[in-house]
Amino acid sequence: MSTRRILALSGGVGGAKLCLGLQEALAPGQLQVIANTADDFNHLGLRICPDIDTLLYTLSGLSDPERGWGRAGESWTVLESLGELGGDTWFQLGDKDLATHLYRTHQLDQGGTLTEVTQALAQQMGVTARIFPMSDSPVATRVFSDEGKLPFQEYFVARRCEPRVTDFEFEGLASAGVSARLARAMADQTPDLVIVCPSNPFVSIDPILGVPGMRSLLDALQVPVVAVSPIVSGMAIKGPAAKMMEELGMPVTASGVAQHYGQQHPGLLDAFVIDESDATLVADCESTGVEVHVMPTVMRSLGDKQALADRLIALCATGTAD
Amino acid sequence: MSTRRILALSGGVGGAKLCLGLQEALAPGQLQVIANTADDFNHLGLRICPDIDTLLYTLSGLSDPERGWGRAGESWTVLESLGELGGDTWFQLGDKDLATHLYRTHQLDQGGTLTEVTQALAQQMGVTARIFPMSDSPVATRVFSDEGKLPFQEYFVARRCEPRVTDFEFEGLASAGVSARLARAMADQTPDLVIVCPSNPFVSIDPILGVPGMRSLLDALQVPVVAVSPIVSGMAIKGPAAKMMEELGMPVTASGVAQHYGQQHPGLLDAFVIDESDATLVADCESTGVEVHVMPTVMRSLGDKQALADRLIALCATGTAD
Repeated sequence: MSTRRILALSGGVGGAKLCLGLQEALAPGQLQVIANTADDFNHLGLRICPDIDTLLYTLSGLSDPERGWGRAGESWTVLESLGELGGDTWFQLGDKDLATHLYRTHQLDQGGTLTEVTQALAQQMGVTARIFPMSDSPVATRVFSDEGKLPFQEYFVARRCEPRVTDFEFEGLASAGVSARLARAMADQTPDLVIVCPSNPFVSIDPILGVPGMRSLLDALQVPVVAVSPIVSGMAIKGPAAKMMEELGMPVTASGVAQHYGQQHPGLLDAFVIDESDATLVADCESTGVEVHVMPTVMRSLGDKQALADRLIALCATGTAD
Repeated sequence: MSTRRILALSGGVGGAKLCLGLQEALAPGQLQVIANTADDFNHLGLRICPDIDTLLYTLSGLSDPERGWGRAGESWTVLESLGELGGDTWFQLGDKDLATHLYRTHQLDQGGTLTEVTQALAQQMGVTARIFPMSDSPVATRVFSDEGKLPFQEYFVARRCEPRVTDFEFEGLASAGVSARLARAMADQTPDLVIVCPSNPFVSIDPILGVPGMRSLLDALQVPVVAVSPIVSGMAIKGPAAKMMEELGMPVTASGVAQHYGQQHPGLLDAFVIDESDATLVADCESTGVEVHVMPTVMRSLGDKQALADRLIALCATGTAD
């Protein structure tokens, strides 16, 4: 078990897998995660934070590994009853999952911040990593597409990512800020390495990095920043990243991701990790000005997750600092 | 099946039993129910209307006859999960029941009135009676007791009616009003008889009659008003009515109820129905200025409910009009 400290930037499923590997590989409390909240939305009066919940369920062992989202042993009584009453059922709300949303919504109504509520949930679920929402202010992704401007969950769940995307907008991002608790944690418990998880660059990582103040806090750490490509062999392991790249006219490759980060977040990355199946792309990726590491990045088993985590942690010593 | 039209004033369980008998005995749509909403409260961000829900579940056949409240075949996954997260679990929220509260809360948030939402729920559940909340404005019962002033559900559920009551207060009642839809229904579809159900006089019937405008709308109907005593043989069939009467220094008898109505709502009642086991109280009850009818009022089976309903409907012809 490493005594290193890691700060990870994460979206939902793909990021959460790596975070689980990191949590297992590090001493308790040595993993800090900044979670994307731009997917968050209000549904049936509930505040739903899909990426935070995926992180909570994955890191606590409560997640359903078969289905890939939500909680294991889930039941659907409320949703079925709601359907019988003529209520909205397009968003799959399991009974156990619903308890999380009820708890969160109530605590927010009582004046708690999303950071406080998230850390209370993490503690109750036995998560040892410290999960921070990217901001306590609501941010809402809108997807510009050939079907017009869609709220993210409508694009993602109701329309199953079928519309062709042209751009994204993050409502509320310009006026959001990093929570005092996260800023203090970054300053007081400086990580040895920042990892940009293999999450969707457009709708998970870009909004995190777009929170006013986030980039300068990361720069001030003066530690290596390494991103793991979510694109492997021209495909996204999970989610619409590859489809989005194609629709945006970008090369659907790990180097396409490296170029995107280089253009959108110049000077951020010190290193870029690509899968061993993409070894031919090293030079392409290096041309964006980063050191490139090739390793197995596909995480099927817990062993895969821990192995990738171990290899990334090893970069703490060898990574190129600013 | 009678073609008479009945307007019933009802609280929860006891009133709902009689309303079920009336619904079965009358032609579809000929029963109108005004439901107490002074027990309504917000819990975990949900708007919960216990008496409306008891009426909905009872009149739709969805209620649990064993437990006496809530829905049949209920499960408790959300509540259990909420408890594991450290959330409030003092109020028993079943999964199916929760769907009702989610639907209602969301519709109210979207600008629907409680009357509209209640009638939509009734329709979805197949209730043929028309249920009207006493008001669309929130009213909240406070119980003055030897433990201080308590919100009703805290007194009723959390403290199990144990504190000794001294008085009641109905927050919001003075500024509440009868909904336009209820006022129109009363004017357009004049009932042949108004029945005050065997509900709690203090916390169910008094608030209904206390809604500004309600009494004059009832008086304008110029039809007989008959109340059924909730006290039988010195006991309440269900709930704290008898305990409250004792604590308030009133005789715990049907005549005590008749006196209460006579004092609080002078001139309202034309007739008062007491159980056959209380036949000795006829003169006592008559002294409050009402005609007294003695009949079996204890409703155990559906047959009991229908028999009482039939006997009450028969009063349409013989009852003393104003």
